[in-house]
Amino acid sequence: MSHSLFSKHQKTLNEAVAAIHTRGYWSPFSEMPSPRAYGDTAAADGEAAFRRHLGQHFELDQPSNNGTAGKEKSPFGLQLNVRYPKPDADTLFAAVETAQAEWRKAEPKAWVGVSLEILARLHKASFEIAHSVMHTTGQAFMMAFQAGGPHAQDRALEAIAYAWNELRRIPDEAYWEKPQGKNAPLMMAKHYTVVPRGIGLVIGCCTFPTWNSYPGMFASLATGNAVVVKPHPAAILPLAITVRIAREVLAEAGFDPNVVTLFATDPDDGLIVQALATRPEVRLIDFTGSSANGYWLEHHARQASVYTEKAGVNQIIIDSVDDIGPAVRNIAFSLALYSGQMCTAPQNIYVPRDGIKTAHGVMPFEAVAAALVESVNKLTADADKAVEVTGAIQNAGVLARIERARKVGTLLLDSRALAHPAWPDAEVRTPLLARLDARKDEATFAAEWFGPIAFVVATDSTAQSVELAGRIARTRGALTLSVYSTSEEVVDAAYEAALCGGVALSVNLTGGVFVNQSAAFSDFHGTGGNPAANASLTDAAFVANRFRVVQVRRHVPPREAAHV
Amino acid sequence: MSHSLFSKHQKTLNEAVAAIHTRGYWSPFSEMPSPRAYGDTAAADGEAAFRRHLGQHFELDQPSNNGTAGKEKSPFGLQLNVRYPKPDADTLFAAVETAQAEWRKAEPKAWVGVSLEILARLHKASFEIAHSVMHTTGQAFMMAFQAGGPHAQDRALEAIAYAWNELRRIPDEAYWEKPQGKNAPLMMAKHYTVVPRGIGLVIGCCTFPTWNSYPGMFASLATGNAVVVKPHPAAILPLAITVRIAREVLAEAGFDPNVVTLFATDPDDGLIVQALATRPEVRLIDFTGSSANGYWLEHHARQASVYTEKAGVNQIIIDSVDDIGPAVRNIAFSLALYSGQMCTAPQNIYVPRDGIKTAHGVMPFEAVAAALVESVNKLTADADKAVEVTGAIQNAGVLARIERARKVGTLLLDSRALAHPAWPDAEVRTPLLARLDARKDEATFAAEWFGPIAFVVATDSTAQSVELAGRIARTRGALTLSVYSTSEEVVDAAYEAALCGGVALSVNLTGGVFVNQSAAFSDFHGTGGNPAANASLTDAAFVANRFRVVQVRRHVPPREAAHV
Repeated sequence: MSHSLFSKHQKTLNEAVAAIHTRGYWSPFSEMPSPRAYGDTAAADGEAAFRRHLGQHFELDQPSNNGTAGKEKSPFGLQLNVRYPKPDADTLFAAVETAQAEWRKAEPKAWVGVSLEILARLHKASFEIAHSVMHTTGQAFMMAFQAGGPHAQDRALEAIAYAWNELRRIPDEAYWEKPQGKNAPLMMAKHYTVVPRGIGLVIGCCTFPTWNSYPGMFASLATGNAVVVKPHPAAILPLAITVRIAREVLAEAGFDPNVVTLFATDPDDGLIVQALATRPEVRLIDFTGSSANGYWLEHHARQASVYTEKAGVNQIIIDSVDDIGPAVRNIAFSLALYSGQMCTAPQNIYVPRDGIKTAHGVMPFEAVAAALVESVNKLTADADKAVEVTGAIQNAGVLARIERARKVGTLLLDSRALAHPAWPDAEVRTPLLARLDARKDEATFAAEWFGPIAFVVATDSTAQSVELAGRIARTRGALTLSVYSTSEEVVDAAYEAALCGGVALSVNLTGGVFVNQSAAFSDFHGTGGNPAANASLTDAAFVANRFRVVQVRRHVPPREAAHV
Repeated sequence: MSHSLFSKHQKTLNEAVAAIHTRGYWSPFSEMPSPRAYGDTAAADGEAAFRRHLGQHFELDQPSNNGTAGKEKSPFGLQLNVRYPKPDADTLFAAVETAQAEWRKAEPKAWVGVSLEILARLHKASFEIAHSVMHTTGQAFMMAFQAGGPHAQDRALEAIAYAWNELRRIPDEAYWEKPQGKNAPLMMAKHYTVVPRGIGLVIGCCTFPTWNSYPGMFASLATGNAVVVKPHPAAILPLAITVRIAREVLAEAGFDPNVVTLFATDPDDGLIVQALATRPEVRLIDFTGSSANGYWLEHHARQASVYTEKAGVNQIIIDSVDDIGPAVRNIAFSLALYSGQMCTAPQNIYVPRDGIKTAHGVMPFEAVAAALVESVNKLTADADKAVEVTGAIQNAGVLARIERARKVGTLLLDSRALAHPAWPDAEVRTPLLARLDARKDEATFAAEWFGPIAFVVATDSTAQSVELAGRIARTRGALTLSVYSTSEEVVDAAYEAALCGGVALSVNLTGGVFVNQSAAFSDFHGTGGNPAANASLTDAAFVANRFRVVQVRRHVPPREAAHV
């Protein structure tokens, strides 16, 4: 059964393994929510499936004897009222350990085959998951579909491909024959078994519950570990659907479904994550969230390998352009997309106070700032269109941060509330732009201002912009860095700063690619080389430590000459 | 220059990469200290080179402005009196950071090429290093030569092969073309740069200063990191010679020799290791030593990835044999080899109190114990021959432990002092065997008794032996497990216990392979799956986290159709 799932998906797996090596564009999952790609009734069926969850108790046949949890609120104002079974930790982990003991013995092809089948089923549920992502994160529908569905599935497949790429290199058997001079050689047969670490805990975030959780979840699962999924209390539903599908596949494949379980919590559940994360059975932790919580896990969950993605400060260096138009339009979109509530969204835009070179002469700092303001204004002028870019504000913390940002530096463009045509209760906000100065405001702009807040920072020179960008990435963390320059020397200097800051660099983005976007199989998301993340999603290091190899060796008679 | 070193050694590297996949026997380094393999004058030249160090100041042209260190004592009684330059940490690390900044830019083929050239030079210095290992560790010459020379070089080459195997899979460039329906596709060129973590600290032990240090040292170096080598104060010379050779090669290849430096200390230097290990520049730590120090590093050096090999309890399960003779002879050799001062040496030998099955009927427990005693006695009867197996006792802690062991359980065979024919001051000891009982003595035998101390433990049954072995491996750590049985069911049960305990299993060793031995390219040394080690020497996980990948991407015109 398990091997048949591996065979069923082997072609996709082989293509994925090829893709992580060539790193060109590749995806088996269509990002367009079209009937042609997903079937004529998929959109309606998925929305109906989502709506059937509303006001209901979410059924999961796992040990969950601690009442219910569930206080999600749609940023668009839809009444959710979904209640989830709430487990007692000791009871749940006992059941997971039992499931894990058998799952371990299933061996790599079963782990990978089951993982790929779960992924195929998740793909079919893309619309249901898209609506659940939208109404927990505040993402507009198209983004919720793409990032929460096919793009998250791409990242999962990438993790499975990396896992398989490591697993397949451990041979089952070896024949070892050591010459002994004139004496008979020493001959041994060896057998190697991959042993998973144990139980992986996946701690989700409230902005990208699937995209950020799938890599760790599938990296652990495909290497033979059981996975306990602990969603952010504000974004449970996408992961609850995910866990339910995983459990269905596991059961159909003849495994104990408790290999994948949900640990739903409420916002006021206190130190429950800390208690879970330090359980001795938990040997792997994948976390996305605040720096404070990430550092806590890195320092206290010492029994586990901990993979974190935390806060960072993303930066743009503007040095010179032929034409400012395409540059500021691209930047404006990056600022407005999901109201900057992305770990990859830019925050600091460095512009020399003496202006930048263009094909039409020097453009003063004020003109560059004005062009940015104008682009954001144009993008957000039509509320009906703008809300499909900005989505809604996920939580009150972001609203409070916008309020604080109004008092910082010189306001260039205030954040405005937009009326959502379909969701009157949605909190929609346009980007705020403020002017700061590198000479005196570093304490302000070196901190993360998560949300639709960006600073146009006047610097003494591009050299200072580059120095700031590299240093802040290195010391405060960053997931993206962007440079606009017509000079290859400046681009080279920016890349050197990126290398020192451990941050991916995008050069002269003026078209349909935005710095916030990270393409699976091609872009390494995070490097693990600065405080924003201690691991990359995904590379070999992300998967290689999730299993061990245990061997048995014994003497054997000499093999046939043909084998030696 | 750097690429020429890569080309020079590429054939060896390719063979090493093939070997880590097929895991058959392979080595480019002869383990026989013969003129044919090493040249007619190699033995005499190497010994002379070693003797030239005695009583001298060991010259190293690195920043070392803190006087000298060096209080090594030969366990064989040879007067060493070698003094090493002692660095001031701040001064040394400033110089290492400068060296590292350029080393980073040299890129993978230079890192690997230089590493391989260092290794080739170390190979030529095998005799010099062998004598230095002998007179710091107490290993007999043959073992000092093999384990300290070619076998350590094998482990280094294995680490380099794993490093290269990861590095080579990161492409330099990628072309990414994403279809956009009826619109022109999005096209980007991407460039990937491998960025090392920074500085690796290698903390050596006093029993295998090269074998245990080389994997971490070369794993870090071959992935572009600078390496600070901190030898155990009792075994500096082998690593000082190693560092000097590394520095010569680096300088010849045009690199700052401070890419590899020595941090020599004295036994009374207090908390200097803790201070070094928690420096922010140190991003990788490779440690071999006590559990207490290893756990301290794992818990406190949070800025670094920490790879530890610590203490463990190695065990042998005797269930049934055709003939007890070959089994006890093999075990006796394992107990006597380097006086059990090996992380892989067996300690607990479980024998059912009702005896074991043999081809000649049931053999009582007492008879099994007596056969073990007799084999150890035979092996150690001739002192002149025995000392070439046992070597000398490394430190007074081992002597004190033997003294304590005399009061434990029922003494089956006392440890005897042997007179070394060549080194009258050498402290030579034969193995001590004591009888313990699984019903009441677990607190005693579940602890590590490092040295020539073994316990024959009476168990209720083989089932209990297996249960004990798996549980103690899992909870207390182990690097080896051995089983003697004519029953495949028992062997399977032992392997299941080994899988749960995360420990490599050897079955029915009765010939020229001993459980203490771990063959590079074939046997994973340690699994990382129990408290004896948090990593394996060597696998992909041991190297994959020693570097990061930083990318740059930009729009490009469409490639020629042929490329797409």
